Amino acid sequence: MTHTCKAILFDLSGVLYDGTRVIPGAPEAVQRARETGLILRFVTNTATKSAATLVVDMRGMGFDVRPDEMFTAPMAAKTYVQQRNLRPYVLVHGAIRDEFSGFDQRDPDCVVLGDARDDLNYANLNRAFQLCHRGAELIGIGMNRYFMDDGGMMLDAGGFIRCIEWAAGVEATIMGKPGAAFFEQVVLSTGVPAGDCLMVGDDAIADVAGAIDAGLQACLVRTGKFQPGDERKVPSEARIIDSIRDL
Amino acid sequence: MTHTCKAILFDLSGVLYDGTRVIPGAPEAVQRARETGLILRFVTNTATKSAATLVVDMRGMGFDVRPDEMFTAPMAAKTYVQQRNLRPYVLVHGAIRDEFSGFDQRDPDCVVLGDARDDLNYANLNRAFQLCHRGAELIGIGMNRYFMDDGGMMLDAGGFIRCIEWAAGVEATIMGKPGAAFFEQVVLSTGVPAGDCLMVGDDAIADVAGAIDAGLQACLVRTGKFQPGDERKVPSEARIIDSIRDL
Repeated sequence: MTHTCKAILFDLSGVLYDGTRVIPGAPEAVQRARETGLILRFVTNTATKSAATLVVDMRGMGFDVRPDEMFTAPMAAKTYVQQRNLRPYVLVHGAIRDEFSGFDQRDPDCVVLGDARDDLNYANLNRAFQLCHRGAELIGIGMNRYFMDDGGMMLDAGGFIRCIEWAAGVEATIMGKPGAAFFEQVVLSTGVPAGDCLMVGDDAIADVAGAIDAGLQACLVRTGKFQPGDERKVPSEARIIDSIRDL
Repeated sequence: MTHTCKAILFDLSGVLYDGTRVIPGAPEAVQRARETGLILRFVTNTATKSAATLVVDMRGMGFDVRPDEMFTAPMAAKTYVQQRNLRPYVLVHGAIRDEFSGFDQRDPDCVVLGDARDDLNYANLNRAFQLCHRGAELIGIGMNRYFMDDGGMMLDAGGFIRCIEWAAGVEATIMGKPGAAFFEQVVLSTGVPAGDCLMVGDDAIADVAGAIDAGLQACLVRTGKFQPGDERKVPSEARIIDSIRDL
């Protein structure tokens, strides 16, 4: 079965850059895609920078990125909380906490849990557990196992979401990859069918398997957190390339 | 099917006491069991006190407890590490850290993870994840979802073990309830068959279902962390009583 491709969804970290290092050929690959007339989306579970900061930082690295092309998991979580009029206990990174400051956070009826890094301490996780055990909805920002940074492989939010799910006996709503609702939101914004969208990522599960489950095409890159053996974790219809340069 | 009962295994917190409060009638129930000629064992996943401290504290509360009747999950974890000559990264509560100080902890090839409370912070959990992701064995002290203390329901070690298991893609060896290996160790010490041992606990899963899975009889008490509905979580052969007083 052949598909046309009308939109490309780029994962960011591990595909376009690693930490502050641009992956060789990445800005050019994005530019080529744009010049071909493809619709571009930048799709990330990153929860340690606001969408606005991501755009500025990526421009500084030489990427032509436009604000309305950026889709982040925290943005999706915020929309979810807004649409349902929830009062969140927000356990997210300091860099994006302001985005949630508009919500009434007294007597929370949901928990928003993201890659809060050092704020993922016992006291805060215990509060999240207690709320969920009493019936608050658990909203996870992304469901990644780990990410790669200068300190090596680092524990991502997914494990902490699993921790609270298991201890409180609840199931989290995942905003971000690999959640189908998140991919659907991005696809909808492109105006083309899911089958005409190609997700490119370095996470075999969150990016590649998640996108294919949501009806998109997907391509795994052998950069970022990719490790030998990850090829076997992706569905057979996934494409695999060494680097975004080869797109 | 009827069973004789030759040994009683008492869970501690929630069955004999709650925090510093003795559950009414508990010391007398233990004494009655002893005078009937039953073999007694005190079996706990508590990982915030050494076995010696537990014996002293319980005697202070009026319980006749003897050191060789005490079986704790940290003791089992220590034995496991010793027997296999492992080098542990030890993430346990300060109160029991000394028990692991004899091990060579450089270049760890296993992680011992227990109810370390405030030491369960991002940096330490990330270290545990990194080691397990590179192949270190994950050894969990107990696999409880939560415990009850003066602050209400509190997140126990189980969720953090699930966090590391899921993120690193490994399966933990559980030392403590509901691990079959732990129950077997206790049963062996009694000198009677598992079917003649009765486990009494307030945790439907870790105490009651775990004991029955390991071939023991089991009894759920409606004290401690027990909540309405827990009756439906235990196998049908479990007995249920309001309190240890009714044993």
